[in-house]
Amino acid sequence: MSEMKKEIVLTGDRPTGKLHIGHYVGSLKQRLIMQDQYETCYLMIADMQALTDNAHNVDKIRKSILEVTYDYLACGIDPNKTTIFIQSLIPELTEYTVLYMNFVTLARLLRNPTVKHELDLRDFGNSIPSGFLNYPVSQAADITAFQAELVPVGDDQLPLIEQTNEIVRHINYHFNTDIMKECKPILSKITRLPGTDGNAKMSKSLNNCIYLSDDEKTVSKKIMNMFTDPNHLRVEDPGKVEGNPVFTYLDAFDPNKDELEEWKAHYRRGGLGDVKVKRRLEKVLQAELATIRERRKQFEEKPDQIMEMLFESSKKARVIAQENLNQLKTVLGINYQK
Amino acid sequence: MSEMKKEIVLTGDRPTGKLHIGHYVGSLKQRLIMQDQYETCYLMIADMQALTDNAHNVDKIRKSILEVTYDYLACGIDPNKTTIFIQSLIPELTEYTVLYMNFVTLARLLRNPTVKHELDLRDFGNSIPSGFLNYPVSQAADITAFQAELVPVGDDQLPLIEQTNEIVRHINYHFNTDIMKECKPILSKITRLPGTDGNAKMSKSLNNCIYLSDDEKTVSKKIMNMFTDPNHLRVEDPGKVEGNPVFTYLDAFDPNKDELEEWKAHYRRGGLGDVKVKRRLEKVLQAELATIRERRKQFEEKPDQIMEMLFESSKKARVIAQENLNQLKTVLGINYQK
Repeated sequence: MSEMKKEIVLTGDRPTGKLHIGHYVGSLKQRLIMQDQYETCYLMIADMQALTDNAHNVDKIRKSILEVTYDYLACGIDPNKTTIFIQSLIPELTEYTVLYMNFVTLARLLRNPTVKHELDLRDFGNSIPSGFLNYPVSQAADITAFQAELVPVGDDQLPLIEQTNEIVRHINYHFNTDIMKECKPILSKITRLPGTDGNAKMSKSLNNCIYLSDDEKTVSKKIMNMFTDPNHLRVEDPGKVEGNPVFTYLDAFDPNKDELEEWKAHYRRGGLGDVKVKRRLEKVLQAELATIRERRKQFEEKPDQIMEMLFESSKKARVIAQENLNQLKTVLGINYQK
Repeated sequence: MSEMKKEIVLTGDRPTGKLHIGHYVGSLKQRLIMQDQYETCYLMIADMQALTDNAHNVDKIRKSILEVTYDYLACGIDPNKTTIFIQSLIPELTEYTVLYMNFVTLARLLRNPTVKHELDLRDFGNSIPSGFLNYPVSQAADITAFQAELVPVGDDQLPLIEQTNEIVRHINYHFNTDIMKECKPILSKITRLPGTDGNAKMSKSLNNCIYLSDDEKTVSKKIMNMFTDPNHLRVEDPGKVEGNPVFTYLDAFDPNKDELEEWKAHYRRGGLGDVKVKRRLEKVLQAELATIRERRKQFEEKPDQIMEMLFESSKKARVIAQENLNQLKTVLGINYQK
């Protein structure tokens, strides 16, 4: 315990559905490691952020809060090591957001590469909600409200870290202070898992995800239906490993790297059938998912207790955000009651 | 007391300087009447809104909170009839703002005529702060957080009322509810007072205001230096009454309307000198300002008590905003702890 690192870590997810193995490989596994390395880890269920493009789909968000939490706990996120909280239960975050919006220009928001990309993915047309456009400001609020210094993100999220640090530097400079801390991204080492259909991204709308909560049969079926190399028609044909999601998944999950390399070579030169490779993947994946699935079932049986835990840890997190906001307001000169 | 009207009234000012006679004529006098007609009147000191274009000028805002309150009380705003509160002490307003931002598009904000006009008045260039662009959303938050139904405004502010009602109707429609109340503008009957220099608007930066807190000598000097009809060179020349700020001020302050009309006719046909008209204005204005000035001095002597009053009434106002926000969150489906 004496070796725990002091930097504050913050991560989060929008609660817009159950988590899938892409989340597991891309972020959850890293969080499991970090909660044992870092003294202070926050994990935010970003319901307010989810509302920015789901304002009329609140049911999905509300239900997903529990589902996502089941997934967290099933994977081994430990509420005693990681403070899991619900964003909307920390209203101070909206105060931060509204204050920061005075330091960020419209032009800057429209220029944000992540926002641009996210806008492309949605069909807002000329109806971009202001809340959506401002979500980088809201993220800066989340990060700085907890003085988080380390923020694990995908490389597509780097502009959001940059936006946060711009606000940090702006305030430190203009208000002649050093209370605001810059944060550093931690890039996940493992690349994003493609969808089972070969699409670059797992996405609920594409129906190409394997969920952590999928039962054994569903996982089996999804693997057997996976996209492979479309030119690998007969077993004896040479096959492609690159861009073949079955091998990408094996790279992520198979502990026996040496044997996996042999299989890849075999597949490349021909003579190794897709079904055999998929069976290998299934064995590996089912083993890992079985534990998660079993633990998840236990948590699913006590939703009230889980919500109570979320309320409690949100309350704890709120105290920190309140303290930091008070400090910021003092620096900005608007803490009249101090 | 039994005849008091039930509609909730909300008005406010950005605390960016002392109030001048333009505020007095344009809004304060109306508020004095309304606090005796309406059971529930809120008067908001909009410091958060003032920050949207003064983010680096917080000192001015902080100091102006007291100055504006002195002005209010000196004019006769009665804290027992009107709940005067500081916007930033109601953090629920930022929650409202962030939630509403999901219901308002960027295009809608950029199309708002008031925002467009206000942008023209400022030299933001390509650096429009997001907070400034979103201030109509923040105003909708202020109005609806208190379920205000009557909002006294200038005619240039009508688009802001429209924006508020759009949000109200949007929520009522999409969430199948009627908790949100539309508000009505109350237009001031008296036109805006021009500056002492003849400029259409009184503005601190133009140095053309007569402040409620100006001492007798300053008022006298400002009146004597007032712009009149530039073509009225000699006493015997015919003069223009329209666009002559001295007469506009007399229209606003002189209780003797019949005699004033005679003077106007005299001025028009020639033979009435500017100095004589200005002396008339001075007599009338000094009389009205003397009472205000005297009362203001008494309040200036007890800033701590005044701030305490503001804290107390802000606390009261906050309870209402909290109740209404809770209700809104329940309707939106994000009141998990309810």
